[in-house]
Order: sequence, then C-alpha cells, then structure tokens
Amino acid sequence: MEHESKTIAALASVTTATLTTLLLKKGLRNVWMRGTQPVRSEQARVVGRAFTLRFIPAREDQATPESWAKPTSTRGAIEAMPAGCVAIVDARGVTDAGIFGDILCARMQQRGVAALITDGVVRDIHGVLGTHLPVWCQGAAAPPSVAGLTFVNWQEPIGCGGVAVFPDDLIVADDDGAVVIPQALIDFVVDEGEEHERYETWVVSEVEKGVPLPGLYPANEEAKKRYEDWKKAK
Amino acid sequence: MEHESKTIAALASVTTATLTTLLLKKGLRNVWMRGTQPVRSEQARVVGRAFTLRFIPAREDQATPESWAKPTSTRGAIEAMPAGCVAIVDARGVTDAGIFGDILCARMQQRGVAALITDGVVRDIHGVLGTHLPVWCQGAAAPPSVAGLTFVNWQEPIGCGGVAVFPDDLIVADDDGAVVIPQALIDFVVDEGEEHERYETWVVSEVEKGVPLPGLYPANEEAKKRYEDWKKAK
Amino acid sequence: MEHESKTIAALASVTTATLTTLLLKKGLRNVWMRGTQPVRSEQARVVGRAFTLRFIPAREDQATPESWAKPTSTRGAIEAMPAGCVAIVDARGVTDAGIFGDILCARMQQRGVAALITDGVVRDIHGVLGTHLPVWCQGAAAPPSVAGLTFVNWQEPIGCGGVAVFPDDLIVADDDGAVVIPQALIDFVVDEGEEHERYETWVVSEVEKGVPLPGLYPANEEAKKRYEDWKKAK
Amino acid sequence: MEHESKTIAALASVTTATLTTLLLKKGLRNVWMRGTQPVRSEQARVVGRAFTLRFIPAREDQATPESWAKPTSTRGAIEAMPAGCVAIVDARGVTDAGIFGDILCARMQQRGVAALITDGVVRDIHGVLGTHLPVWCQGAAAPPSVAGLTFVNWQEPIGCGGVAVFPDDLIVADDDGAVVIPQALIDFVVDEGEEHERYETWVVSEVEKGVPLPGLYPANEEAKKRYEDWKKAK
Amino acid sequence: MEHESKTIAALASVTTATLTTLLLKKGLRNVWMRGTQPVRSEQARVVGRAFTLRFIPAREDQATPESWAKPTSTRGAIEAMPAGCVAIVDARGVTDAGIFGDILCARMQQRGVAALITDGVVRDIHGVLGTHLPVWCQGAAAPPSVAGLTFVNWQEPIGCGGVAVFPDDLIVADDDGAVVIPQALIDFVVDEGEEHERYETWVVSEVEKGVPLPGLYPANEEAKKRYEDWKKAK
Amino acid sequence: MEHESKTIAALASVTTATLTTLLLKKGLRNVWMRGTQPVRSEQARVVGRAFTLRFIPAREDQATPESWAKPTSTRGAIEAMPAGCVAIVDARGVTDAGIFGDILCARMQQRGVAALITDGVVRDIHGVLGTHLPVWCQGAAAPPSVAGLTFVNWQEPIGCGGVAVFPDDLIVADDDGAVVIPQALIDFVVDEGEEHERYETWVVSEVEKGVPLPGLYPANEEAKKRYEDWKKAK
Repeated sequence: MEHESKTIAALASVTTATLTTLLLKKGLRNVWMRGTQPVRSEQARVVGRAFTLRFIPAREDQATPESWAKPTSTRGAIEAMPAGCVAIVDARGVTDAGIFGDILCARMQQRGVAALITDGVVRDIHGVLGTHLPVWCQGAAAPPSVAGLTFVNWQEPIGCGGVAVFPDDLIVADDDGAVVIPQALIDFVVDEGEEHERYETWVVSEVEKGVPLPGLYPANEEAKKRYEDWKKAK
Repeated sequence: MEHESKTIAALASVTTATLTTLLLKKGLRNVWMRGTQPVRSEQARVVGRAFTLRFIPAREDQATPESWAKPTSTRGAIEAMPAGCVAIVDARGVTDAGIFGDILCARMQQRGVAALITDGVVRDIHGVLGTHLPVWCQGAAAPPSVAGLTFVNWQEPIGCGGVAVFPDDLIVADDDGAVVIPQALIDFVVDEGEEHERYETWVVSEVEKGVPLPGLYPANEEAKKRYEDWKKAK
Repeated sequence: MEHESKTIAALASVTTATLTTLLLKKGLRNVWMRGTQPVRSEQARVVGRAFTLRFIPAREDQATPESWAKPTSTRGAIEAMPAGCVAIVDARGVTDAGIFGDILCARMQQRGVAALITDGVVRDIHGVLGTHLPVWCQGAAAPPSVAGLTFVNWQEPIGCGGVAVFPDDLIVADDDGAVVIPQALIDFVVDEGEEHERYETWVVSEVEKGVPLPGLYPANEEAKKRYEDWKKAK
Repeated sequence: MEHESKTIAALASVTTATLTTLLLKKGLRNVWMRGTQPVRSEQARVVGRAFTLRFIPAREDQATPESWAKPTSTRGAIEAMPAGCVAIVDARGVTDAGIFGDILCARMQQRGVAALITDGVVRDIHGVLGTHLPVWCQGAAAPPSVAGLTFVNWQEPIGCGGVAVFPDDLIVADDDGAVVIPQALIDFVVDEGEEHERYETWVVSEVEKGVPLPGLYPANEEAKKRYEDWKKAK
Repeated sequence: MEHESKTIAALASVTTATLTTLLLKKGLRNVWMRGTQPVRSEQARVVGRAFTLRFIPAREDQATPESWAKPTSTRGAIEAMPAGCVAIVDARGVTDAGIFGDILCARMQQRGVAALITDGVVRDIHGVLGTHLPVWCQGAAAPPSVAGLTFVNWQEPIGCGGVAVFPDDLIVADDDGAVVIPQALIDFVVDEGEEHERYETWVVSEVEKGVPLPGLYPANEEAKKRYEDWKKAK
Repeated sequence: MEHESKTIAALASVTTATLTTLLLKKGLRNVWMRGTQPVRSEQARVVGRAFTLRFIPAREDQATPESWAKPTSTRGAIEAMPAGCVAIVDARGVTDAGIFGDILCARMQQRGVAALITDGVVRDIHGVLGTHLPVWCQGAAAPPSVAGLTFVNWQEPIGCGGVAVFPDDLIVADDDGAVVIPQALIDFVVDEGEEHERYETWVVSEVEKGVPLPGLYPANEEAKKRYEDWKKAK
C-alpha cells in the first residue's frame, strides 16, 4: 500500500503527454482513450486504479427503468467501488444516452471515487458539475442510459475510447484526456517520468532564452552536457 | 392561452433529463436532438412551441446570395415567427455552412423569439453571442448558408438531430440539449415532471447524508415511506 | 512590403464570415477549413501568410522519437518559419496524436509566428495555452505525433480541413475558424471587405430600431438610399 | 412530349461521368448523389423525371405499422407516380431501416415507374431483385421504414445523397450512380453530350493505338485536327 | 429438443424483414445488426442459437501472436461451440483487423457451426469462401485480429452491430442481414411468421394482377375477406 | 533486377494476410490500406513497386478541366510510370469525385502498369472494367476528380487508406486489399512467407481431418514434429 501511495504521488506530477511518450518507447501506441475530455477546464489531474463497468447496446425488453433495481445494476457497481478508484465505463462511444446523472455521481463522490471516465456521455450535466466529481467524457445528453445502453457487469476487461482497460490497471487523466498504464510498466514510467518532466522544464527555460530546437530537443551531446550542469547546479 | 402559459411555467423547472425519462415510460425513445448544444455555458432553460424551418443541400444554380431576397427566404420565415416560439432548423447536420449570422439572430431577438435550435451551425459566432438570443447548435462556421444549404420552407414537418419535429410541438432545451414533447403527452409530463423533480431532490439530500443507492433510487417500500414522510413534513 | 502591411491591417477588421461571402461571389465555396477552432474563447483575429507543413500517416519504422532529430523534422520546419507567418499543418484530420506540444509552440512564439492552425490536435494543451501562441485546432490528445503521424516536409501544397492551401496563400482566422484567400483575390476582398463590414454595421443598427429584414438585407432601392445617406452623415 | 422523348432517348447514351463533366463546366459541382449504387451489376442506364418522396426521422408515436394505411402514405405516393418517372427518396442517409420492400417495388414496377433511387436502403432485397425494378440505394436492411423513418409527403424539394432534387428535375442513373440535371441545362447537356461521347470514343481508339495522353486528352491543335478528320471519315 | 427443431424449421421460411416487423409490433425496434452482410450473394438463410464471442481493442502488450496459444483464446472458443450454433462475434465494428481467417472458419465448419456473424471483418476472404462456412460480416481485411483486437471471452452478453445479444438468443440471418429474437418472443414469431409470409405471398399475387396497394396492404375489410377466401380455396 | 524478379515471383504466392502477420512480428501494425478493395471478384494478386500520386482538396480556382493540360497533371504522371509499377494514389479518402476514368486507365494498361490502388474512387466504372487494368479502390463516382480534388505531384511520400507509402516501396494486393512492405523487410517476408504458407497448407489439411486447433495452430511440440515429418515426406 505504501508503494501504491508513492506511485500515485509520483505520477501526480507527470503529464499524460509524457506518459504516452514513455509507453511508446516500450512499444505501446494505443493507451490514450479517444473522445473523452475533462468536463470542466481546470479539472485537477487524477491518478488511480481502474474500476471497470461495461454497457452493451439497449434492447427494449432489457433496458428499462425497472432494470435499475436489479442487483447487477449501475447502483450495485457503485457500491462495490473502493475509495480512490477511477471508474472507467465502456459505453461503446454512444453519445445519445447519458450513462450517469447527478444522483449517481453524487453517490460516487460520497464514496470517495477519484473520477469517472467514459467514452460515452453524462446527463443532467448541470447537476453533475454540482457534485464536484471529476469527470472525463464526450459531453452531455438528456436521455437516460436505458434509451441506448444496457448495463452488464463490473470489473471485466473493457474497451474505452478504442483502448483496452483491465480491472486494476493504473489510470492517469488530465487536460489531454485519459491514459492507461499496464501493471508491468508502472515502475518504468514512475522512474522515467520525473526525469522526463525535469528535462522538459529545462528545455522550456532554454527556449525562453531563445535557443533553437534543433540540437536541444532532442538534445545533442553539447545540450546534454549543459542539461547535466543545470541539474547539478540546482 | 392561460393553459399554455401554465404549461410553459410548469416545464420551466423540469430538466430535459427528467423529460426524456418520462417520455421513455410512454415508449418514446427518440425525442432528444443529437449534436445540438448550448452556445454559452450558463444559457437559461427555454420552453416554447416549435416553429420549423427546412433546408436541403445546396445546388449552385439555386443557393446564391441573390436567393436571400426571394419571398420564401429565411428572412420571410423570421417575419412569420410568433413571439415566444422556438425556431427549430433542419440543417441536415451540415457543419460547414452557418445557417444564420448575427443580423438574422438580432432580428429574431427583436421579434421575441425564445430560442434558435439547429442540428447545423451558426456563423459570426462573436456577433451571435452579442445578440443575446439563446442558441443551441453544433458550433460555428464562417461560410454562408448558401455555400452548403438551400432554404426551402417553414412550418413543415422536419428532422433535427435525428428527431422528428412537427410545427407547434412543444420544445424544452437546457444544458443537456433540446427535447421535443408531442402534443398528446404534454399534460402527462407536466403532471409527472414536478413530482419527479421533487423526488430527485429528496434522493440527492439522502445521498448527501450517505445513504447508498440500492433501495433508494429506485425506491423500495421503506424508502418510499420515508419520502412520503419528508413530503408531508415540508 | 508596405502593400503587405496595409493588406494585413485592412483584413484585421474583416470577419471570416464576410470573407467567405465575398469569395463565394467569385465562385469559391471551399475556402473555410473544417474542424479547426480557436483553443481559447477570446483569441484575437489573426492575418498572415501560410507556412505549410505536411504529415502523412505513421509507419512504425519511420515515426519514432529518433526521427525528431532528423534535418527534415518539425524542428527544422519551425526554424524556417518567418516572423508573422501562419503555420498551417496538414494532419489529415488525425485526432489521436498531438502534432505539437508546449515546447514547439513556445519556440514558434519566440520566433514571432502569428498562429498555428491545423486539422489535427495539439498535446499538453495546458502548456500550449501557457505559451500564448494563438492556436486553431480540433482539440487535444496526449500521444505524440509519431504515434499516428510522420512529418514529411514544409512549404508544399497541402490539404487542411478539406481545403487546399498553397505556400504563401493569405490566411485569416477568428472565432468562426480559418479561411484561405487565394493570391489573385486579395485586393478584391480588401476593397470589398471594409464596405461590407460598414454596411452590416448599418444593418444591425437598423435591426436594433426594429426594421424587418425583407427589403433591408439584402437591401432594396429604398434601403440602399437610406444607407448611402447614413454613410454621408457619418 | 416529343421533345421529352427525344431528350430521354438522347441521354440514354450519355454516361453520368460525361454529364457531371458538362455540368461542372456550367459551375454545378454538386449534382451526383452520394452513397447510392445500383443493386445489381448489369443494371441498365435509366433516364426520367424525378418524382420525390420525403421521410423524416421516426418518432414512436408517429411511425407505426398503422400509419401505412393513412392517405399520405408511401402507398398513396406510389399511386401518384406517373409512368416513366424516377422515384427519388430522401431517406436522410438512414441505413438501418428499409424504405421499401418487394411488395411496394412490385407495385412500382406494375405502374411503369422507371427506377427507385434513394440515399437509404431497401428491405427484402431478395424479393426486390425479383421484381426487376431498377434500384439505386445504399444496400439492404431488414427493419421496416417505421423503425427509423416517418413518411411525410411527395413531390416536395428534397435532399438525396447530399444533392438537392426538385420535382420534375431530370435524373440519369448508371453504374456510377445517379445525377440530377436542372431543367435549364437539359438542352445544353443533350447537345454537348453526344459530341463528348464521340470524342471520348475516338480518344480510346487512339490510346489503344499507343498514343500518349498529353496533347490528346485534352486535345492540342494537332489532335483536334486529327479528330475532325476521323469524324469526317466516318 | 423437438420443440427446438420445430422452431428452427418454422423460422427457416420466415424472412428477417418479416421478423423485424413482428418484433416491432411487440415494441422491439433494435434487433437487426448494423453493417453485417452475407459474404456471398446466394447464401442460404440460417437459424440457430447464439454462441457469443467478445473482443476488446488491442493493447500491444496483450494482443500478440503468442496469445493465440492461451486457453482463453478464439481456438478454445471454437472447441466449445455446439453443432448448429451461430457464432456471433462482437468486434466493436473494427474493420481493419480480420477476426478469423480460413483456418478458424474451416474448423468451425468441421464442428458443424451453422454460421459466423460479426460486426467486424474476416481475413483471407478467398480461403474463407473456400470453407463454405456461411458468414455475415462487414468485408475483409488482411491484418490479423491482434493488430486491432484482443479476444476476451465467450458466452457473455455482447453488442454486435449496435444490438444486444445474449448467449442462446435465437438468431436468423438472410440476404437482409442478421436479427436476434429474444427467448420470450420465439413462440410469437413462429406463430405469426408463417401467416405473415402467406399473407404477403397473396399480396404479391394481387399486385401482379394490377391491384393498387391502398386498401390491400395493409388490408381493408374487403381485402381481408378476399384473402380469407383465397386461403380457404388453397 | 534478377533479385527483383525473384522477389516479385516469390511474393506472388504469399497472401496479404500472411504478409501482415509477418510484418506484425517485426512491430509494423499499420501497413494495410483501409477502404480499398478489388473492383472485380476474381482479380489476380499483384506485386510491384509503388509509384505514388498525390491529390489535395479542390479549390475552385485551381481544379478546373483546363488544369488537365498542365505539365504537372495526372496525364504527365502516367507517362512517367515505369512498366510493372503499382500506381498508389492518395485521394484523401474522397468518395464523391472519381480520380481516374476509362481513358486514363486504358493508357496505364497500355504502358504496362501492374495495378491502380487508391483510397478514393474511379469513374466510368463500366469503362474502367473494360480496360482490364487491375484496380483496388473504394468504388465509383460519376464526378471528375476536379469536382473534389486537385492533383499535386508524383513520386512523393503519401498517405493511402491511413498508411504511409514512399516511392518504390513494395506493394502486394489481393482479395483482402493492399499492403506496403518497407524496403528493409522485403528479404525477411520473402524468406518467411513461403514457409508460412506451407505451414498453413498443412494446418488446413489437418483441420480437414478433424484435428482441433488448440495445439495445432499455433503448433505445440508434438504438432511441430508432425509438421516436420509431413514436410520431409513431401
């Protein structure tokens, strides 16, 4: 748990832009979820373990308001979410039925869920914003989920925005969207991420002094030396 | 007319999320217009009767600046709009030609039109925002309507965002988008809407106390009783 | 150069909505770039000469972080950009790989580039906004360009948002998006643009007095006379 | 009527490829209907006057099997179709509800309708092929039209495949799809079409002899002379 | 089992067009799978129980040729398929990675699988056609499934072509595509289907005699009587 | 040249399905061109060097019938094509303007061009089929290229169907579509391809004997041994 806390703390200062660059070096190109965006402009970066939910398309005999009372319901899924998790919802990219509204988001906020991320949309966006739950999604739609989607289960492997997400994968989301980090690569991105951010900070300071990019970014030998000197001088 | 005023007043406090839930109970799944969003973030909810306009694709021999002076023009349509109506424009989802700019929106605002809703886009968005006309659309584009669309007629049955709209249907729009209410179901949604909103207010207050959702939303017998007690106590 | 400065100054007060209307009169319907929007809401209008960049899809053996150090790189392109130019980037509409991040935008801002316009997306949007470089794009994505795109060359004819752009075409961008003005039509739009804006200002003032649009916009003979009187009286 | 028959006979040997080239010379770029294709591979070229039908999206309270018995129904429209007309159906590009099946197509065939053209799909494709009615569409779907569409009216201006079609416009369809010819340009395309086809026949014969295209197509002065000689020799 | 055989035999002569009409009468509008088509033109109608397979997007660390040897692989799924079942594969509409090629199709054919239906594509289409397995899909692509998809599991609820499919739902597929029949409605469609097909046969025969559709389809009282007489006379 | 001939001969019996599998093993996932299909069902496999052509969107002042006579025209490009090359055309996925018709295809056939491959469409499809030039494309459209596209240049790096193609890359196309093989990997795929096809032939023969796939495909040690025995016995 201590290791987990350290990981989450370390990743809290690494952008999703940096994470995708690092994962690309390991051959992973498909880790950023398409279409999902922060619902508010100054939404804080979020780091946490994936708690997955899965919807399939609606069929009129299955997707009814009555289904909301079934044990395998979105309500049941929310009660199973541990504090600090990031709920990742496979809505199959459906944008004309809101998966959750203000009441479900309020309950998630109560339970200490870190964020809601989906390739679908929410409903009652005014109320959702009022709950202060951090949300990444494709926008808002008035119709309830049952107008287009049927809830199936939680903690299964899912797709979200064209990306595979497995239960308990590590998720980071910021203004550029949401990224999944496979378990086996967490230590790598934690180790490299801090250094990468430090180097980019130095590059920005060089650019601000008027240094051209060729030779600086990526760095040639001379630039690398200057960077090392800058690090020592700090 | 008094009944109409009461209806509009009653629906002014019912969200489109609630309306789509109620209409779904009556078997109507396709009443929310896809793609159309409020042009500003704090735009007030709008309720009014639909005044429909219909465009077809542009053909170079038909869609010319000269056509704007014809009697069956968008200008003629605007002069036919009654105060309080909601102009619903079938732009066939075209997003690279703005149906209206600041001048037409200014005239609509002058005439007391309640709102402009379209599955297309507007142009001169800076000027449109300046008119203070409430607008729901897919965004902005610089080209004039004739670059992609030809105006045909007004007060015909249309499609808008994948939804059928007939002249004088009741329209409600808010932060979640725009919904059509068929004439025959207006009294039903007015009657049920107020109660639905009251119940959801109570649910939110329960959630804020830490009550889990299963059994509460939808309510089991015990929750129903508590809700009835809460209503009496108010 | 003086003529150029006058052109740019003159076009600084002509909206892209007006420009597309004027170009349509000359038979040009396809001059507005689809999909690209200002990244911030109060972004100032930009006028400048196109400096084109071209990407093709990524191939894993070509699009690598290592390629960033090649002479024909985005870094090289930026060093070739003259002050005041508008960088127009053909990203083939790809929205899951950011063409540029904060460091490249910071360098462009340093070099006096007037704006970055693309039918793709940027990355590290938080940092990009911090550079204050004016940007028109489709949004943000975390992955680096090499995850989806390979940079090819600069100052070639390109497509951007479904529009042909040739090096040194004149570009104007505002809240409605970005428009290309072919070289041969610059003097025409400068001459007509000022008058068009003046006339629309007068129309708005008439509308605010309650004058209906038919006969006013477009103007009939009587309205034309009143407009001429208004101009003289100014 | 005689003129009409001659027109139709003349256009029976002009390809839609030639027609779009000729109309482009007159400034009409948007006359070919997107998405609609012949349902069988050796379907004969069709020429006729447009008889338009218009659908809007389905609303569950309107689009029911019961609606098929209303006077303003697709059945009523078919009985109003004159022999030799080309039925053009605006299905708004909907591909998951078949506008017509075998029975309606059989009745159209009985009434001497020349062809059915739509930007939607048909249903019971096996039966439709059996009626021998020439059909251009986007393919087949099992659900009835009421599952996605509501029929509105006939002989109104419509859009089909992104093209404006007015009642009684002339329509030509072949293996490349369907084209609309505005009334005012019919004589032009009849006059030019025959010559254009003759010239292309000669070009093909030259190509088969091994003549390169530059100078031949388009023709330079020398090639024009050779072509004129060939025409005289025929 | 006998009942099952009778059901399958009865449905073998009912078109998917008829089935969607009947299910619509029961309020089910979303039962036809979008995008999936027969791979050959004279493919026989198929009826059988759904055996579901589920893919999610590919992640480079999961979707490898090595994964094909895992126990939860597509190979394992095929060995679990009972004879006569219809394999329904949720490929999330991905069209640039073929889910199965000739070898897997050959094994399915060996095991007596009735058909393969997917909203994705197959690969090695030449070989797949050679196996004679009936297939409904979106076409062909050369890349292996692991280039875009990761196999997850079988016999779970899935989405296919925008339709919910549960294990053991009844599936019917013909030239118009594939339809799911929920368990609770099987007896209804078997009972109604035969009569519906008989009635449509009679309507076609009437149309061939020149009877107009209004009053005939749907039938008025007089037509109903004539139909009943026709039935008795058979 | 002899090596080239051997390469082409060797690849003539390797499917694109096999090639994408082999290239994936080398980390190349994006080598198959999306959307492009053979225009006839029994079109023979084609192998050859890429000769690239590039279009950008049309601008009315650039894309005119007159432009066809310019030196940098599609006609000029065709005269530059060497015998045996595969013309790969970047049409930016435009499907409403045909890049080439029967005359240009006839000239390519005359010059010994091996095939035409594009992510766009052809026109006068009836005539194109008559030239017997092998073509892979998205279908047919009547309008000429200038209705939507402007030709720019040949033998530049391009994108086609979402794939990067460089001049002289090796191209293979069959019923599953078209694949690019980077220069550096040609010897690898030639070496592995033949063995891969042999192994799959053996697997099919095993499947036809009723052997289940797990353990066979991919092969376990026992299956590998049997395969080696089978090879020796041949």
